[in-house]
Amino acid sequence: MIEDVWVFDRIPEQDLRKRIEGMKRLMAKDHIDFSIIFQNVDRFYFTGSIQKGILVIPVDREPLLFVEKSVERAKAETPLDIIPIRSDKEIKKILDSSRLLEGKAGLELDVLPVATFERLKKVIGFERYADISALIKELRAVKSPFEIEQIKKSGRMLTHVFAKAKEVVREGATELEIDATLVAEGRKLGHQGFLRMRGINQEMMTLTVQCGFTGAVTPYADVPIGGAGLTPALPQGSSLKRVEKGVPVTIDYGGGYNGYVTDETRVFVAGELKEIFRKPYEAAREIMEDIQSYAKEGVDCVDVFSRAYRIAEKARLQDHFMGCGKGQVSFIGHGLGLEINELPVITARHRRALKEGMVFAFEPKFVLPPHGAIGIELDFIVRKNGLERVTGDPVDIVYV
Amino acid sequence: MIEDVWVFDRIPEQDLRKRIEGMKRLMAKDHIDFSIIFQNVDRFYFTGSIQKGILVIPVDREPLLFVEKSVERAKAETPLDIIPIRSDKEIKKILDSSRLLEGKAGLELDVLPVATFERLKKVIGFERYADISALIKELRAVKSPFEIEQIKKSGRMLTHVFAKAKEVVREGATELEIDATLVAEGRKLGHQGFLRMRGINQEMMTLTVQCGFTGAVTPYADVPIGGAGLTPALPQGSSLKRVEKGVPVTIDYGGGYNGYVTDETRVFVAGELKEIFRKPYEAAREIMEDIQSYAKEGVDCVDVFSRAYRIAEKARLQDHFMGCGKGQVSFIGHGLGLEINELPVITARHRRALKEGMVFAFEPKFVLPPHGAIGIELDFIVRKNGLERVTGDPVDIVYV
Repeated sequence: MIEDVWVFDRIPEQDLRKRIEGMKRLMAKDHIDFSIIFQNVDRFYFTGSIQKGILVIPVDREPLLFVEKSVERAKAETPLDIIPIRSDKEIKKILDSSRLLEGKAGLELDVLPVATFERLKKVIGFERYADISALIKELRAVKSPFEIEQIKKSGRMLTHVFAKAKEVVREGATELEIDATLVAEGRKLGHQGFLRMRGINQEMMTLTVQCGFTGAVTPYADVPIGGAGLTPALPQGSSLKRVEKGVPVTIDYGGGYNGYVTDETRVFVAGELKEIFRKPYEAAREIMEDIQSYAKEGVDCVDVFSRAYRIAEKARLQDHFMGCGKGQVSFIGHGLGLEINELPVITARHRRALKEGMVFAFEPKFVLPPHGAIGIELDFIVRKNGLERVTGDPVDIVYV
Repeated sequence: MIEDVWVFDRIPEQDLRKRIEGMKRLMAKDHIDFSIIFQNVDRFYFTGSIQKGILVIPVDREPLLFVEKSVERAKAETPLDIIPIRSDKEIKKILDSSRLLEGKAGLELDVLPVATFERLKKVIGFERYADISALIKELRAVKSPFEIEQIKKSGRMLTHVFAKAKEVVREGATELEIDATLVAEGRKLGHQGFLRMRGINQEMMTLTVQCGFTGAVTPYADVPIGGAGLTPALPQGSSLKRVEKGVPVTIDYGGGYNGYVTDETRVFVAGELKEIFRKPYEAAREIMEDIQSYAKEGVDCVDVFSRAYRIAEKARLQDHFMGCGKGQVSFIGHGLGLEINELPVITARHRRALKEGMVFAFEPKFVLPPHGAIGIELDFIVRKNGLERVTGDPVDIVYV
């Protein structure tokens, strides 16, 4: 019955098995005897379900999926066997009886709060432990064909939303009005409702619209363009700033389909683009064309960043590249998947070769306080011989 | 300039000072020498700003607000003194020089991930520590007149949104279509964009619409009515289920103004309400009228729960009260403020006297699988002599 009111595609059981086997291999290398997977997204990745419960992956045995509620829904969602429990207190006895608790436990220490960790330690009873978050991130960095299909469907939302944006961006409209229309547009298409960003204090909105100085405000978050927001209580996102003639409106939208997020930015201009934004836009375009000319499996992320930086430098825009002053961020791209901050991260420092199946957002942006910001963001799938665009949509400035 | 594109009211400095003094008193009682406040919402509560940084509150001295970025925005947002830093590594030297690190540190262990805790321990260097999350929750449970004003403004969004709902709830409409229209409606009114729920795996949407069996699906989250959602990747919220004649449509909406959330539920019916839902609705109404007849400062939350339960029992609906089967939750009300799961929690077990200035959502709901769910949710401010409604809106079923 639930299946009638859903729009999702079911994860192939083979994908789940592969992920779990991959995790076991990484655990074995790190001498971890069993992993305790607690966070919603990670549990979804390994099981296809985020019903309330805990997943235990022993390095040398079948996974144990404990589910508190709803057992019925979990059964409909995952092909894995389920162990129904009333409370997490039952887990220890089951694990004890299979002598699983003698080795080193692996936990998601990057997201697990200290109090939750202490509780798990008490109710499950492990002694030695290590952080498995790097392993999970590593594993999740390369997407399966099924995952790429989901990401492409998530990308189709962007196509529709940016087409709708052309109708609503108008001189005099507020960022918030544009935002409200477009958030509804995505939702009607089956947008899951919000985007996930891993970590404490990481708060993410489906979209953010900036026009003028709000695009050049230094964000508190690790993003090049964050917006003024509506209040210091949530100082990011769209504000009451109105669209002005000639000043770029940047719309940064994240699709969300069946858990998978996309993240692209387009520029809309009422009238003709003001002179000051032209060179930065051309530099952003050049960086975007450049990456598509050489990037492919094997290319290192540091080299991707360097090439982009050199183009910015050549245009004498390095001080405005990816932010300005203290707002300058260290990356020009970030992995996409179930969370918006996955691997790879494309910076000057983090050496990592691109691999077939990685998916990332690439966002050359220039910030010119107090005038505004301009840039493009596209999502790419890494292939053996090049990059594949998630959507094939045009990237040019849309004049309205 | 930012002030021109914001809609917020500035927190009075006096409120911030009072909160910090209150925290110091609670810390002194628990023998905590300094608190390290890291989480966005808690930092906002004590400073009025969530710009990137760390707040240190020594038990016997002025607070130290370290800000990484944006210093300019933090200055505009908080009346407290700011210590600009480039990295959290600078904090230790400053604290060392004022000999602050000799005592016991207090941290938000309910939300602070283990890895973040370890980093703070390394860069700040404390040895003894304790959990201060209970102290912060205690302090935040009673709202100031300024906070109540914000909550009332947040409540006004509900009034508008439920009025709009009357136009869009129609036989044949999907939950998602109604959801999309109403999320945009709130946003246009200045809704902050999302609601905050404290803790790992706590994910919250601005609204959820249920009509029929989707209201009776057992939620994975700790809520009586959670919805089917659109995908197992986010199995809550509105779905593609269509409105049917006579079956209640429950719309649970959370306002969000200047950080403060409200949370109310109304029932819409196309045609005449089916027989099976009538008694449950009358019981919900009776519980709602009952609480307004006696609750006030001094009344214990356990007694509030018991009286409601007895009314459900009298109607022989106790097995459908606040969920059904494993979906039954233990509470009928929860505190509201900057987060949607604040104190007080109204259950059969958690003894706590209501206090003037507490604000809570009260939600008698009945779940009748597989038919659907029905109920009402209203927000109340606790006063010396009774309860004050956050909005004065009618609560009756809206027939469309």
